[in-house]
Amino acid sequence: MKPSIPQGTRDFDASTMRKRKFILDNIRTVFELYGFEPLETPAFENLDTLTGKYGDEGDKLIFKILNNGLDNPAKENEVRKSFDSILAGKNDKGITERALRYDLTIPFARYVAMNFGKLTVPFKRYQMQPVWRADRPQKGRYREFYQCDADVAGSRSLLSDVEFVNIYRAVFKRLKMEVEIKINSRKLLSALAQVCNAGDLTSVTVAIDKLDKIGIDKVADELKTNGLDDTQIATIRGYLAISGNNEEKLNSIETILGKTDDGKKGIEELRFILSYINSASDLKNVSLDFTLARGLNYYTGIIYEVKACGVEMGSIGGGGRYDDLTGLFGLPNIPGVGISFGVDRIYDVMDELNLFPGNIKQATSVLFMNLGEEESRVAFREMQLLREAGISAELFYEAAKLDKQFKYATKKNISFAIIIGSEEIKEQISVIKNLNTGQQEEIPLIKLCSYFAERVHTFQ
Amino acid sequence: MKPSIPQGTRDFDASTMRKRKFILDNIRTVFELYGFEPLETPAFENLDTLTGKYGDEGDKLIFKILNNGLDNPAKENEVRKSFDSILAGKNDKGITERALRYDLTIPFARYVAMNFGKLTVPFKRYQMQPVWRADRPQKGRYREFYQCDADVAGSRSLLSDVEFVNIYRAVFKRLKMEVEIKINSRKLLSALAQVCNAGDLTSVTVAIDKLDKIGIDKVADELKTNGLDDTQIATIRGYLAISGNNEEKLNSIETILGKTDDGKKGIEELRFILSYINSASDLKNVSLDFTLARGLNYYTGIIYEVKACGVEMGSIGGGGRYDDLTGLFGLPNIPGVGISFGVDRIYDVMDELNLFPGNIKQATSVLFMNLGEEESRVAFREMQLLREAGISAELFYEAAKLDKQFKYATKKNISFAIIIGSEEIKEQISVIKNLNTGQQEEIPLIKLCSYFAERVHTFQ
Repeated sequence: MKPSIPQGTRDFDASTMRKRKFILDNIRTVFELYGFEPLETPAFENLDTLTGKYGDEGDKLIFKILNNGLDNPAKENEVRKSFDSILAGKNDKGITERALRYDLTIPFARYVAMNFGKLTVPFKRYQMQPVWRADRPQKGRYREFYQCDADVAGSRSLLSDVEFVNIYRAVFKRLKMEVEIKINSRKLLSALAQVCNAGDLTSVTVAIDKLDKIGIDKVADELKTNGLDDTQIATIRGYLAISGNNEEKLNSIETILGKTDDGKKGIEELRFILSYINSASDLKNVSLDFTLARGLNYYTGIIYEVKACGVEMGSIGGGGRYDDLTGLFGLPNIPGVGISFGVDRIYDVMDELNLFPGNIKQATSVLFMNLGEEESRVAFREMQLLREAGISAELFYEAAKLDKQFKYATKKNISFAIIIGSEEIKEQISVIKNLNTGQQEEIPLIKLCSYFAERVHTFQ
Repeated sequence: MKPSIPQGTRDFDASTMRKRKFILDNIRTVFELYGFEPLETPAFENLDTLTGKYGDEGDKLIFKILNNGLDNPAKENEVRKSFDSILAGKNDKGITERALRYDLTIPFARYVAMNFGKLTVPFKRYQMQPVWRADRPQKGRYREFYQCDADVAGSRSLLSDVEFVNIYRAVFKRLKMEVEIKINSRKLLSALAQVCNAGDLTSVTVAIDKLDKIGIDKVADELKTNGLDDTQIATIRGYLAISGNNEEKLNSIETILGKTDDGKKGIEELRFILSYINSASDLKNVSLDFTLARGLNYYTGIIYEVKACGVEMGSIGGGGRYDDLTGLFGLPNIPGVGISFGVDRIYDVMDELNLFPGNIKQATSVLFMNLGEEESRVAFREMQLLREAGISAELFYEAAKLDKQFKYATKKNISFAIIIGSEEIKEQISVIKNLNTGQQEEIPLIKLCSYFAERVHTFQ
């Protein structure tokens, strides 16, 4: 049998794991600095927690878990019975009643609804876990991938919206990634639909959402197909053409939408948020973008999107404010706001731009060469002292040829090799070879810990 | 709809997450110190990677994933067809071809077999991920739980067996847990079966494995049922009754099994391993236990098991040496040795014995009170400076009554509250209240960062 892994999934080897950990640790640290608390939910939920939440297309992509025993031919009758009742639409628990997590938002909503009485409100939680989608795999699209979400539930304060702009800035500053953070308000899109009498906000939003991909003319075509006339489309074209710096954009939008309630409110909110992004020099990567629509319909206020500079890549983060997080689970009127980081894309950008720090490649710092039974007993004792001092170390398991041992060190990116032979034992010294520079020096055994404590990463 | 989660699964809230992270981080650090490298495999594998590896009982507990589209009544014919062919035993891909990870060993073996040419051998990997089993849920047994494994693949050196005794000691020393590490060799059980002419090693092993649960007399009964006579059972009773310190035990076992090849070899290996556990004072928690059998049949050499002292609890870790890791995946003769940590049980022991350090409860360190629009702008600026200095801080989102704001601080275990009112802004100071002691003091705004850097946890 030739082993393989399922289409659209990946094994993460040590080098990839370390780079991913660098990203995840930085995101987690910023979430913690901002007072968000960790949450983890199970990999699978009850099927009815998930179905009907992601639209028809989404529902099809949910991985469902087979009820136990149903793949067992010995239970033929039972299987046929439950199958018949499913097909008759009588029993939706017949064959499957659990499904893999599709995103982190619905499990979060389910958790808040289940535990609301016990939570500290506003409830600030973050969650970093894999999700699964039965999508057709392609470059950059996987069937198992990580999401990193932070949300505030239970606050209408705009200060909670401000948090997320700063979280994005703080994370990407730590990752040394240049990004553009775009913000808009769904209220402006609402006002636009109102001003041009478009009636249905959704069709306008959906068309605008495609601007990046299909261009303004095709958006106009789509709006026409949706029944808008030339005047209406001209208004939308005027809206989408607004340019300048943030202040200029706000002034322009005011002339178009400033007379509607939604327009006034949206502009006021954006002004408030920008006023909180304190110093002008920091503001340069936060820009108003009225063409930003975000596909999902549940957003009602501020929306965010982040793009990496200098590479071709879709958005690496996004989010927004929604009015009703938990209504579907029987707890109405809990507003919220939150964002997500696209870890796989961030990884790809950092890899392409070579932004990962060099020292995260390091595994073992020191390899003790194995020169035989007696010598390795001394080496072993010294190695244990290094490990206890927080310095990662290995003793080669066999007294193999030194060539082979050095090759092992090279393949594992080990920086130092230590040779302790019978001569060295007599003198209580060791020969240390720096594998990056090739330099060698003799160091007394008693000084090994302090020697390496100054030169390599130590674990606490 | 009343939300719930699937039986046997759990949500992990912030306090539980932090405690679990404390355990996982310490295990990870020790794995890294010992030169093991991280690996993560997908949550689901191809079904045929998993089936047939865990015995008939295990196979029944594997969660299988429904092939996509098969729960869709519109596809009735397709569903019926594939169902018919499954039931006829013709098509095992009909309804499911993927399944959730059941342990970390088989995915590791599959990974090694797939990637052997690229690996640095001996390959030292660790893996810390959840696994899923459709077991009947009960106290301490879940359908989703974490495993933490470390294995060395591709080395027969006993030095690699020695690693794991030291890893156990290092981890539990960090966790401040008192444990007993038991070791034995499967070779001695083999020798025992040979010496008493028991023929089938497995039935002896399986019976001995139950010693803890059913006692020596019932083990003897079971052996009798298996066809052993009184002389044979007397030999096994003699073996199981061996006591004393490690040296005494080795001497006793030598008189019983020292004449067989397996016996000699097993004793020699145990002596070697004990000789490497260097200082006598450290040895006190490592004990030979000839009654240790470990249920799984694939072990062939040293076996390990860890028990927590001072609590009633099954083993919190175990492992051993096996001869053939990847044979089932077409790559024969790769020996290995490895161990596992039972994170859920370790958590329960530490909770019961109150061993978690107090400071891991901490989320936000500092809460800025919201006293109104103007005041909160100053507070916000100061808060961002603290966050940039690695001090976790929040500004209460609304200018609510101070009572309510203090209550939020208490519920979130926040240590310090900062009040910056209009008077304080004039004088550029702040009033800091220590929420643990009730003490208050005035600190100039300019000194806030250094004040907290000395008093709370800072993130790097």
